[in-house]
Amino acid sequence: MKKKFDLKRNIYLDMRSIDSARQILFEKFEHCTKGAVEEIDAVDALGRVLAEPGVAALSSPNYHAAAMDGIAIDAAASFGASELSPVSLVPGKDAFWINTGHVMPAGTNAVIMIENINVIDTPDNAIDTPDNAIDTPDNAIDTPDNTINTPDNAIDTPDNTIDTPDNAIDTPDNAIDTPDNTIDLPDRGTRIEIEAPAFPWQNVRKMGEDIVATELIFPRGHQVTPYSIGALVSGGMFRIKVKKRPGVLIIPTGSELKSWQDARDRGLLPGEVVESNAGVLGALCVEYGAIFHRHETIGDNLESITRAVRDAAGMSDGDSVGGGVPKYDMIFIIGGSSAGSRDYSRPVISTLGEVYVHGITMMPGKPLLFGGVNGIPVFGIPGYPVSAIVAFEQFAGPLLLKMQGLLPTARERDTIEVLPARKITSKLGLEEFLRVKIGSVEDRFVASQLPRGAGSITTLTQADGIIRIPAHVEGIDQGVPVRAELIRPVSAIKNTAVIVGSHDNTIDVMADEIRKSRPDVEISSSHVGSMGGLMAIKKGVCHLAGTHLLDPDDGSYNISYIKKYLAGMKLHLINLVMRDQGLIVPGGNPKGIRGMEDLARDDISFINRQGGSGTRILLDYKLKEIGMDSGDISGYDNEEYTHMSVAAAVLSGRADAGLGICAAARALGLEFIPVVTESYDLLIPDKFFHIKPVEVLLETIVSQDFKKRVRSLGGYGTQRTGEVVFTIL
Amino acid sequence: MKKKFDLKRNIYLDMRSIDSARQILFEKFEHCTKGAVEEIDAVDALGRVLAEPGVAALSSPNYHAAAMDGIAIDAAASFGASELSPVSLVPGKDAFWINTGHVMPAGTNAVIMIENINVIDTPDNAIDTPDNAIDTPDNAIDTPDNTINTPDNAIDTPDNTIDTPDNAIDTPDNAIDTPDNTIDLPDRGTRIEIEAPAFPWQNVRKMGEDIVATELIFPRGHQVTPYSIGALVSGGMFRIKVKKRPGVLIIPTGSELKSWQDARDRGLLPGEVVESNAGVLGALCVEYGAIFHRHETIGDNLESITRAVRDAAGMSDGDSVGGGVPKYDMIFIIGGSSAGSRDYSRPVISTLGEVYVHGITMMPGKPLLFGGVNGIPVFGIPGYPVSAIVAFEQFAGPLLLKMQGLLPTARERDTIEVLPARKITSKLGLEEFLRVKIGSVEDRFVASQLPRGAGSITTLTQADGIIRIPAHVEGIDQGVPVRAELIRPVSAIKNTAVIVGSHDNTIDVMADEIRKSRPDVEISSSHVGSMGGLMAIKKGVCHLAGTHLLDPDDGSYNISYIKKYLAGMKLHLINLVMRDQGLIVPGGNPKGIRGMEDLARDDISFINRQGGSGTRILLDYKLKEIGMDSGDISGYDNEEYTHMSVAAAVLSGRADAGLGICAAARALGLEFIPVVTESYDLLIPDKFFHIKPVEVLLETIVSQDFKKRVRSLGGYGTQRTGEVVFTIL
Repeated sequence: MKKKFDLKRNIYLDMRSIDSARQILFEKFEHCTKGAVEEIDAVDALGRVLAEPGVAALSSPNYHAAAMDGIAIDAAASFGASELSPVSLVPGKDAFWINTGHVMPAGTNAVIMIENINVIDTPDNAIDTPDNAIDTPDNAIDTPDNTINTPDNAIDTPDNTIDTPDNAIDTPDNAIDTPDNTIDLPDRGTRIEIEAPAFPWQNVRKMGEDIVATELIFPRGHQVTPYSIGALVSGGMFRIKVKKRPGVLIIPTGSELKSWQDARDRGLLPGEVVESNAGVLGALCVEYGAIFHRHETIGDNLESITRAVRDAAGMSDGDSVGGGVPKYDMIFIIGGSSAGSRDYSRPVISTLGEVYVHGITMMPGKPLLFGGVNGIPVFGIPGYPVSAIVAFEQFAGPLLLKMQGLLPTARERDTIEVLPARKITSKLGLEEFLRVKIGSVEDRFVASQLPRGAGSITTLTQADGIIRIPAHVEGIDQGVPVRAELIRPVSAIKNTAVIVGSHDNTIDVMADEIRKSRPDVEISSSHVGSMGGLMAIKKGVCHLAGTHLLDPDDGSYNISYIKKYLAGMKLHLINLVMRDQGLIVPGGNPKGIRGMEDLARDDISFINRQGGSGTRILLDYKLKEIGMDSGDISGYDNEEYTHMSVAAAVLSGRADAGLGICAAARALGLEFIPVVTESYDLLIPDKFFHIKPVEVLLETIVSQDFKKRVRSLGGYGTQRTGEVVFTIL
Repeated sequence: MKKKFDLKRNIYLDMRSIDSARQILFEKFEHCTKGAVEEIDAVDALGRVLAEPGVAALSSPNYHAAAMDGIAIDAAASFGASELSPVSLVPGKDAFWINTGHVMPAGTNAVIMIENINVIDTPDNAIDTPDNAIDTPDNAIDTPDNTINTPDNAIDTPDNTIDTPDNAIDTPDNAIDTPDNTIDLPDRGTRIEIEAPAFPWQNVRKMGEDIVATELIFPRGHQVTPYSIGALVSGGMFRIKVKKRPGVLIIPTGSELKSWQDARDRGLLPGEVVESNAGVLGALCVEYGAIFHRHETIGDNLESITRAVRDAAGMSDGDSVGGGVPKYDMIFIIGGSSAGSRDYSRPVISTLGEVYVHGITMMPGKPLLFGGVNGIPVFGIPGYPVSAIVAFEQFAGPLLLKMQGLLPTARERDTIEVLPARKITSKLGLEEFLRVKIGSVEDRFVASQLPRGAGSITTLTQADGIIRIPAHVEGIDQGVPVRAELIRPVSAIKNTAVIVGSHDNTIDVMADEIRKSRPDVEISSSHVGSMGGLMAIKKGVCHLAGTHLLDPDDGSYNISYIKKYLAGMKLHLINLVMRDQGLIVPGGNPKGIRGMEDLARDDISFINRQGGSGTRILLDYKLKEIGMDSGDISGYDNEEYTHMSVAAAVLSGRADAGLGICAAARALGLEFIPVVTESYDLLIPDKFFHIKPVEVLLETIVSQDFKKRVRSLGGYGTQRTGEVVFTIL
């Protein structure tokens, strides 16, 4: 009997769109968004959400306070005052010296600023008075001459203010002893005159001016900011009821997983993987306002995983519904979320509770599932790092926000319009989350797609944004505007130099050196080979191209290609480094490879670079030179995109030799057989030659620090680094 | 001798602009941005900044791994395969069953997906094989029929997979026992056939595909995100060197200050103020990545403050320069930053170190000063809450960011263009930070200025944004576009119903009730009186107006005014509440006030509402009714803008009586003498009648919860609440 597995048939049966799955999630766990309240100190409430309306218990100010330094009077006493007929008052009788913030004396309702007062018969120590006049934010530095410039005055030698007990107004103790802080000065200026009437309550902060007790200061659901803390404390709301932070248990599963501590102490065997998702999801929980606990990794064992979830959900053994009080508000089972027979997330949840959704029409993250166990949400999170993150951000995260009374959309990213540098294809029936690099080129934002693989975390760490392609859309054409969710802020993207083209390790050194002196400038580099770089320049999707294209006719680099493919453009070609290219072979060179000629040997497999790369062109040039046919080389058709991956291929035994740079060989402890020294240059359109990130980049590569680090990599010469190879304007 | 204090003369001498002061700050403390590095676990590094480049120590994957479930072969063995001439392979000999993520067996370099394999002579248990074929994110849910719908199959009753030892591929233990996890199945299908050639490395995750050891993953200065943690751990960077979090000591000073604990336990005397700045600044430190310690409040005492700073700066007694190791990286002295003789921040800093800047041409925050003590920055932070916050956000905060290797601008706010609802005046020579409410009205953002007072924290907690008016600009005219820094996100502003007009306590209840059911909708209300509300509707700067304008001729409310002032507009008038207006008098009514007539008594002072308020109109109507002249009422010219502040005025003894609503009297425990029951309505232009926030608002006011809470305030009737009083279309 002959049987063909045809599994495509039901592929999308029973899957849910993001929206419908999220709706189910929110409905099923509506009860989790109620209750769960705790009382905490307002000063520690940053980021928390008020579970009750914030009603003021105290007024602020809670008394009529002077808003200026000066003299407090009953406004009525000043009516009719003018320059011609000033009104005269007697301090201590119908006028009272007062400092900002102090209690208005009984019977007074206005403060006259010191500047507007004539003091009659002032003794010398009255010279101190102005200082008190300038206590308020709005006329603070009024008398720099006698406060800042004169070292021997009341300010810089405070002793003379402290040692003047008779000068009561200057004695801080006094401020403590007399609760109302108003000072009567019988021995001071016997009379004052004012030349303008005061109106009632001028320069007075009236009781309740900021906050009136019993007022609603914040509605429930308000998320506490640093500012809120000020209003809560000033309003006497010292202890507040807030939503509890949800507690999340994170359970990594998979027999292949090793903890980072084990990996550090014992290393990794082939087939072993460092567990990294728990750290990522834990950090995401924190960013979403939750607290988390990382469970130790559990192997692919149904019983152990079931036991862990049952325990966390507070269910006593064998109790399959209800049970005790859950120890957590949410549980993640990482790994084994698919429908394979070794995937236990589903059986665990369906045994202890109920699975609500399994399979979302999104990519990455398709095999996500979630259900309820003893009333709490349990997520089966896919094990691929990018899938796990998408699963969190689309489902678990928004629910965590709702549990705290926040909007599920509270952490949605801003979006900008970008232009795809190339056509983007997408799978029908799935909403795709494409990670892209975004370059700010002239007035446009150009998006270059990163690899799709859900297993590659670097596709997220290198991404500036995410383009979401709806399930019903098959792809986006090059240059067609589309929205991208921002992972890095626009300001950072605008300060990033975009390098496309050939790969060289010194670009990483450059990126790091720049951050030393200029944290505001960044480098984004994509490796598409030298010819790819030239084409990117032509399309205007990058600022610089790294290129090392050998001209077989005259042995020159780049110039002839530029003239041929970029005719008419204004360009600058700057040398970055001189570098050795050669054969990368395993340590000890077991197969005794001496040079290019040996590549023809039957016992040698080769790993090649992609067509259009300078190294590929170099190889073909060398083969022609020695009259060798590419057909003679086994592995000629196996291509890699960077020197490091060529070296990695040799290290892993995939190939016996590859052509690449010395730095890559050294990096992985491989041997290097020099073949040629070539010129690796940076091609820069004139219009980008003077934009900030490019200028910073060019300043950096001529620095001694950069050159020194480059030389230390081995196989590099910096004698021409920064040199203008040629300019076409 | 007659002396006039003229302090204006030197007012701006020696002050610095924000930019020049910041430049001095950054230059003086450049040394603080170096060093201070600690090593931590990568999994705990969220938000931290890499002090060294992040170079991969491990490759990921660190072996060639199957990317699909299926059968691993040497691609070469499949060359030439076609439907007509399938290639046949023998599992265990030249083909090996393999699961996703497992090590490729020696001699294999390609995986053929299970779907593309014909199994010859399959025994029954081979039916389990498909399950293994569908382990990868991209074809996870392929066979729901036998995984999800059939309870008695391998998925939902995992036992039968666990209890089938002969069915080796399904046994998890097996995954642990054989390190390479590839399973040879002699007892399973004796032969397989493939009908298409495999190409080398298809469906294989090659060693180093994601990360190659020695590669630069992050440059120094990278701030760790949740995603970064994944790359750090996967790349073997388990422990990383990061910039230390700066430690800040916060010292509140001021003899009038009481801690919130004291205020809670002993209450506040007149003249006493709850210390609230330390909590605010501490929370800001946290948001800026620093850790902080709150020093207990110190009274206005030079010695004590000096001692505290000297100790924190690590200076041994009497040692005025250099000294020991500082205990903190930054010190705040809150309060006493001006040039008054009781302002000790400056003398403290100049005694222990050097003052660099004192006085910034900004408002609020003008009296800010900072200097260096034993090499660390010490700030004299103004004591008014808004001044303290501006001082932090403009100076201390940016320096804290630089200390961590972050951009000083890292926390700069987004800005949007807004239109001032009224002319905004500004003081020349000072850069003003105006707090504004921003309403999203039709397609414009309208900004309404909040009070300027630096002492009022609620001007920040109520603000949606800040308009910065440069020192050289005198003001902004109404309707002239200007940029505003956003405090609340645009999305929140767009979901906010803007109510301008008469004040009523039920608006707060409404705001809180809405948040119960619709956390996505908010209320922003400004109190400018009923007429002010009508004008705001006319100018189109709000969505709704609260109004209770009595027509003296017919005793009707609002309609005649609307017809007169808003002729031609399409409007809806909805009743919010019926409410009692009356005289608010102190508890016990000490002066035995019986009604309006008593307001003419000489021994009674009155507190009035502002002209244009419905209550003011009501008062004048009543006075006319009883033939009383406003001149007979002492205090007629003293105006307040809300019922609560009228009540507060009575409570504080500023007035013996005021006209207002019962709820305000009750709130402050005052007595209420009813005068009239009036209709308080909401006026809504037709064009806003169906926008989301208004619809939510109208749904809310007809809810029983809302009506019940309103009635419990006292003096309210809800029998007509939600009723359409009239509509003009």
